[in-house]
Amino acid sequence: MAGLTDKAKRLLSEPNIVHLATVMPDGSPQVSPIWAHVEDGVIEFNTAAGRVKEQNMRRDPRVAFSVVNRDDPYERACVRGRVVEMVEGDEARAHIDKMAKKYLGSDTYPWYKGETRIIVRVEPE
Amino acid sequence: MAGLTDKAKRLLSEPNIVHLATVMPDGSPQVSPIWAHVEDGVIEFNTAAGRVKEQNMRRDPRVAFSVVNRDDPYERACVRGRVVEMVEGDEARAHIDKMAKKYLGSDTYPWYKGETRIIVRVEPE
Repeated sequence: MAGLTDKAKRLLSEPNIVHLATVMPDGSPQVSPIWAHVEDGVIEFNTAAGRVKEQNMRRDPRVAFSVVNRDDPYERACVRGRVVEMVEGDEARAHIDKMAKKYLGSDTYPWYKGETRIIVRVEPE
Repeated sequence: MAGLTDKAKRLLSEPNIVHLATVMPDGSPQVSPIWAHVEDGVIEFNTAAGRVKEQNMRRDPRVAFSVVNRDDPYERACVRGRVVEMVEGDEARAHIDKMAKKYLGSDTYPWYKGETRIIVRVEPE
Protein backbone atom coordinates (compact mmCIF):
# COMPACT_ATOMS: atom_id res chain seq x y z
CA MET A 1 0.00 0.00 0.00
CA ALA A 2 1.56 3.26 -1.16
CA GLY A 3 -0.15 5.32 1.51
CA LEU A 4 -1.76 8.75 1.48
CA THR A 5 0.04 12.07 1.58
CA ASP A 6 -0.55 14.07 4.75
CA LYS A 7 -2.68 16.54 2.79
CA ALA A 8 -4.84 13.80 1.25
CA LYS A 9 -5.30 12.17 4.63
CA ARG A 10 -6.36 15.46 6.19
CA LEU A 11 -8.75 16.44 3.39
CA LEU A 12 -10.34 12.98 3.47
CA SER A 13 -10.56 13.03 7.28
CA GLU A 14 -12.31 16.41 7.48
CA PRO A 15 -16.02 16.66 6.54
CA ASN A 16 -15.35 17.55 2.90
CA ILE A 17 -17.50 16.16 0.12
CA VAL A 18 -15.43 13.65 -1.86
CA HIS A 19 -16.00 12.74 -5.52
CA LEU A 20 -15.62 9.04 -6.34
CA ALA A 21 -14.90 7.84 -9.86
CA THR A 22 -15.63 4.28 -10.99
CA VAL A 23 -15.64 2.51 -14.34
CA MET A 24 -18.87 1.70 -16.22
CA PRO A 25 -19.36 -1.68 -17.97
CA ASP A 26 -18.39 -0.07 -21.31
CA GLY A 27 -15.14 1.30 -19.84
CA SER A 28 -16.30 4.91 -19.60
CA PRO A 29 -15.91 6.83 -16.32
CA GLN A 30 -18.63 7.62 -13.77
CA VAL A 31 -18.25 10.05 -10.87
CA SER A 32 -20.48 11.05 -7.97
CA PRO A 33 -20.20 12.75 -4.56
CA ILE A 34 -19.78 10.71 -1.40
CA TRP A 35 -19.01 11.02 2.28
CA ALA A 36 -15.67 9.46 3.11
CA HIS A 37 -13.30 8.83 5.97
CA VAL A 38 -9.80 7.47 6.57
CA GLU A 39 -9.16 4.66 9.04
CA ASP A 40 -5.64 3.21 9.39
CA GLY A 41 -4.62 4.53 5.99
CA VAL A 42 -7.64 2.97 4.27
CA ILE A 43 -10.30 5.17 2.67
CA GLU A 44 -13.79 4.18 3.82
CA PHE A 45 -17.16 5.20 2.51
CA ASN A 46 -20.70 3.89 2.52
CA THR A 47 -22.95 3.11 -0.42
CA ALA A 48 -26.13 1.11 -1.02
CA ALA A 49 -26.76 -2.15 -2.87
CA GLY A 50 -27.92 -1.62 -6.44
CA ARG A 51 -26.35 1.77 -7.05
CA VAL A 52 -24.38 2.24 -10.28
CA LYS A 53 -21.16 2.83 -8.35
CA GLU A 54 -21.68 -0.33 -6.28
CA GLN A 55 -22.20 -2.47 -9.37
CA ASN A 56 -19.18 -0.85 -11.04
CA MET A 57 -16.89 -1.52 -8.06
CA ARG A 58 -17.94 -5.18 -7.84
CA ARG A 59 -16.95 -5.62 -11.49
CA ASP A 60 -13.83 -3.43 -11.48
CA PRO A 61 -12.28 -2.48 -8.10
CA ARG A 62 -10.25 0.41 -9.49
CA VAL A 63 -11.49 3.79 -8.23
CA ALA A 64 -10.30 7.37 -7.86
CA PHE A 65 -11.13 10.21 -5.46
CA SER A 66 -11.04 13.97 -5.82
CA VAL A 67 -11.56 16.24 -2.83
CA VAL A 68 -11.18 19.94 -2.16
CA ASN A 69 -11.19 21.76 1.15
CA ARG A 70 -14.74 23.00 1.83
CA ASP A 71 -13.26 26.30 3.06
CA ASP A 72 -10.60 26.66 0.33
CA PRO A 73 -11.44 24.95 -2.97
CA TYR A 74 -7.86 25.49 -4.19
CA GLU A 75 -6.52 23.05 -1.63
CA ARG A 76 -7.08 19.69 -3.26
CA ALA A 77 -6.10 16.03 -3.31
CA CYS A 78 -6.57 13.37 -5.96
CA VAL A 79 -6.09 9.71 -5.02
CA ARG A 80 -6.36 6.50 -6.99
CA GLY A 81 -6.94 3.17 -5.31
CA ARG A 82 -8.46 -0.27 -5.29
CA VAL A 83 -11.49 -1.61 -3.43
CA VAL A 84 -10.27 -4.28 -1.02
CA GLU A 85 -13.43 -4.92 1.02
CA MET A 86 -17.19 -4.43 0.85
CA VAL A 87 -19.08 -5.14 4.08
CA GLU A 88 -22.86 -5.34 4.56
CA GLY A 89 -24.97 -5.92 7.69
CA ASP A 90 -24.99 -4.31 11.14
CA GLU A 91 -21.50 -2.90 10.74
CA ALA A 92 -22.54 -1.06 7.58
CA ARG A 93 -25.70 0.32 9.23
CA ALA A 94 -23.65 1.61 12.17
CA HIS A 95 -21.10 3.06 9.75
CA ILE A 96 -23.59 5.23 7.85
CA ASP A 97 -24.71 6.68 11.19
CA LYS A 98 -21.07 7.42 12.01
CA MET A 99 -20.73 9.20 8.66
CA ALA A 100 -23.92 11.20 9.31
CA LYS A 101 -22.37 12.28 12.62
CA LYS A 102 -19.24 13.44 10.85
CA TYR A 103 -20.96 15.32 8.03
CA LEU A 104 -24.30 16.40 9.49
CA GLY A 105 -23.72 16.29 13.24
CA SER A 106 -26.67 13.89 13.40
CA ASP A 107 -26.64 10.74 15.57
CA THR A 108 -28.40 8.74 12.88
CA TYR A 109 -28.44 8.85 9.09
CA PRO A 110 -31.62 10.81 8.36
CA TRP A 111 -32.24 9.51 4.83
CA TYR A 112 -32.31 5.76 5.58
CA LYS A 113 -35.10 4.01 3.68
CA GLY A 114 -34.39 0.34 4.35
CA GLU A 115 -31.75 -0.05 1.63
CA THR A 116 -28.85 -2.48 2.11
CA ARG A 117 -25.95 -0.31 3.24
CA ILE A 118 -22.40 -1.32 2.33
CA ILE A 119 -19.06 -0.15 3.72
CA VAL A 120 -16.46 0.09 0.96
CA ARG A 121 -12.77 0.07 1.89
CA VAL A 122 -10.16 1.29 -0.58
CA GLU A 123 -6.39 0.97 -0.37
CA PRO A 124 -4.68 3.99 -1.95
CA GLU A 125 -2.12 3.31 -4.66
CA MET B 1 -27.06 15.37 -27.88
CA ALA B 2 -29.17 14.38 -24.91
CA GLY B 3 -28.85 17.73 -23.20
CA LEU B 4 -28.41 18.75 -19.59
CA THR B 5 -31.08 18.86 -16.94
CA ASP B 6 -31.92 22.35 -15.70
CA LYS B 7 -30.23 21.57 -12.39
CA ALA B 8 -27.04 20.31 -14.05
CA LYS B 9 -26.95 23.36 -16.30
CA ARG B 10 -27.36 25.69 -13.33
CA LEU B 11 -24.75 23.96 -11.14
CA LEU B 12 -22.25 23.93 -14.01
CA SER B 13 -22.98 27.58 -14.85
CA GLU B 14 -22.45 28.86 -11.30
CA PRO B 15 -18.88 29.15 -9.96
CA ASN B 16 -18.89 25.70 -8.38
CA ILE B 17 -15.81 23.50 -8.48
CA VAL B 18 -16.48 20.57 -10.84
CA HIS B 19 -14.80 17.18 -10.65
CA LEU B 20 -13.83 15.67 -14.01
CA ALA B 21 -13.27 11.94 -14.44
CA THR B 22 -11.24 10.51 -17.32
CA VAL B 23 -9.89 7.06 -18.16
CA MET B 24 -6.21 6.16 -17.66
CA PRO B 25 -4.30 4.09 -20.29
CA ASP B 26 -4.88 0.94 -18.19
CA GLY B 27 -8.63 1.56 -18.06
CA SER B 28 -8.72 2.75 -14.44
CA PRO B 29 -10.46 6.01 -13.55
CA GLN B 30 -8.81 9.37 -12.77
CA VAL B 31 -10.61 12.38 -11.30
CA SER B 32 -9.54 15.95 -10.53
CA PRO B 33 -11.15 19.35 -9.84
CA ILE B 34 -11.69 21.84 -12.66
CA TRP B 35 -13.39 25.11 -13.45
CA ALA B 36 -16.20 24.62 -15.95
CA HIS B 37 -18.88 26.48 -17.82
CA VAL B 38 -21.85 25.77 -20.09
CA GLU B 39 -22.19 27.41 -23.50
CA ASP B 40 -25.08 26.44 -25.81
CA GLY B 41 -25.60 23.16 -23.98
CA VAL B 42 -21.93 22.19 -24.28
CA ILE B 43 -19.74 21.86 -21.17
CA GLU B 44 -16.52 23.83 -21.54
CA PHE B 45 -13.39 23.78 -19.44
CA ASN B 46 -9.73 24.65 -19.81
CA THR B 47 -6.71 22.42 -19.27
CA ALA B 48 -3.02 22.50 -20.22
CA ALA B 49 -1.02 20.40 -22.68
CA GLY B 50 0.76 17.49 -21.03
CA ARG B 51 -1.55 17.02 -18.06
CA VAL B 52 -2.72 13.48 -17.30
CA LYS B 53 -6.33 14.42 -18.01
CA GLU B 54 -5.41 15.98 -21.36
CA GLN B 55 -3.53 12.87 -22.47
CA ASN B 56 -6.40 10.67 -21.27
CA MET B 57 -9.03 12.67 -23.18
CA ARG B 58 -7.02 12.55 -26.42
CA ARG B 59 -6.90 8.76 -26.16
CA ASP B 60 -10.45 8.21 -24.86
CA PRO B 61 -12.98 11.07 -25.20
CA ARG B 62 -15.39 9.62 -22.65
CA VAL B 63 -15.57 11.75 -19.48
CA ALA B 64 -17.84 12.36 -16.50
CA PHE B 65 -18.51 15.33 -14.24
CA SER B 66 -19.66 15.59 -10.63
CA VAL B 67 -20.60 18.93 -9.11
CA VAL B 68 -22.23 20.08 -5.89
CA ASN B 69 -23.58 23.50 -5.01
CA ARG B 70 -20.85 25.42 -3.14
CA ASP B 71 -23.52 26.68 -0.71
CA ASP B 72 -25.40 23.38 -0.34
CA PRO B 73 -23.32 20.23 -0.93
CA TYR B 74 -26.48 18.12 -1.00
CA GLU B 75 -27.59 19.69 -4.26
CA ARG B 76 -25.66 17.76 -6.87
CA ALA B 77 -25.44 16.81 -10.52
CA CYS B 78 -23.56 14.00 -12.25
CA VAL B 79 -23.14 14.13 -16.02
CA ARG B 80 -21.42 11.82 -18.49
CA GLY B 81 -20.29 13.02 -21.90
CA ARG B 82 -17.85 12.92 -24.73
CA VAL B 83 -15.11 15.35 -25.75
CA VAL B 84 -16.02 16.80 -29.13
CA GLU B 85 -13.42 19.55 -29.47
CA MET B 86 -10.03 20.61 -28.05
CA VAL B 87 -8.88 24.09 -29.06
CA GLU B 88 -5.44 25.66 -28.47
CA GLY B 89 -4.09 29.14 -29.25
CA ASP B 90 -5.40 32.64 -28.58
CA GLU B 91 -8.94 31.46 -28.01
CA ALA B 92 -7.76 29.11 -25.25
CA ARG B 93 -5.68 31.84 -23.60
CA ALA B 94 -8.67 34.19 -23.60
CA HIS B 95 -10.88 31.40 -22.27
CA ILE B 96 -8.77 30.74 -19.15
CA ASP B 97 -8.99 34.46 -18.35
CA LYS B 98 -12.77 34.25 -18.73
CA MET B 99 -12.81 31.31 -16.32
CA ALA B 100 -10.63 33.23 -13.84
CA LYS B 101 -13.18 36.04 -14.01
CA LYS B 102 -15.99 33.63 -13.25
CA TYR B 103 -14.28 31.82 -10.37
CA LEU B 104 -11.88 34.39 -8.90
CA GLY B 105 -13.31 37.70 -10.07
CA SER B 106 -9.90 38.36 -11.64
CA ASP B 107 -9.52 39.86 -15.13
CA THR B 108 -6.63 37.51 -15.94
CA TYR B 109 -5.71 33.99 -14.89
CA PRO B 110 -3.18 34.59 -12.10
CA TRP B 111 -1.36 31.26 -12.31
CA TYR B 112 -0.35 31.35 -15.99
CA LYS B 113 3.22 30.13 -16.50
CA GLY B 114 3.50 29.92 -20.27
CA GLU B 115 1.87 26.49 -20.60
CA THR B 116 -0.18 25.66 -23.71
CA ARG B 117 -3.80 26.20 -22.65
CA ILE B 118 -6.56 24.09 -24.22
CA ILE B 119 -10.31 24.60 -24.29
CA VAL B 120 -12.11 21.27 -24.01
CA ARG B 121 -15.73 21.01 -25.15
CA VAL B 122 -17.91 18.10 -24.04
CA GLU B 123 -21.32 17.11 -25.30
CA PRO B 124 -23.42 15.64 -22.49
CA GLU B 125 -24.92 12.19 -23.08
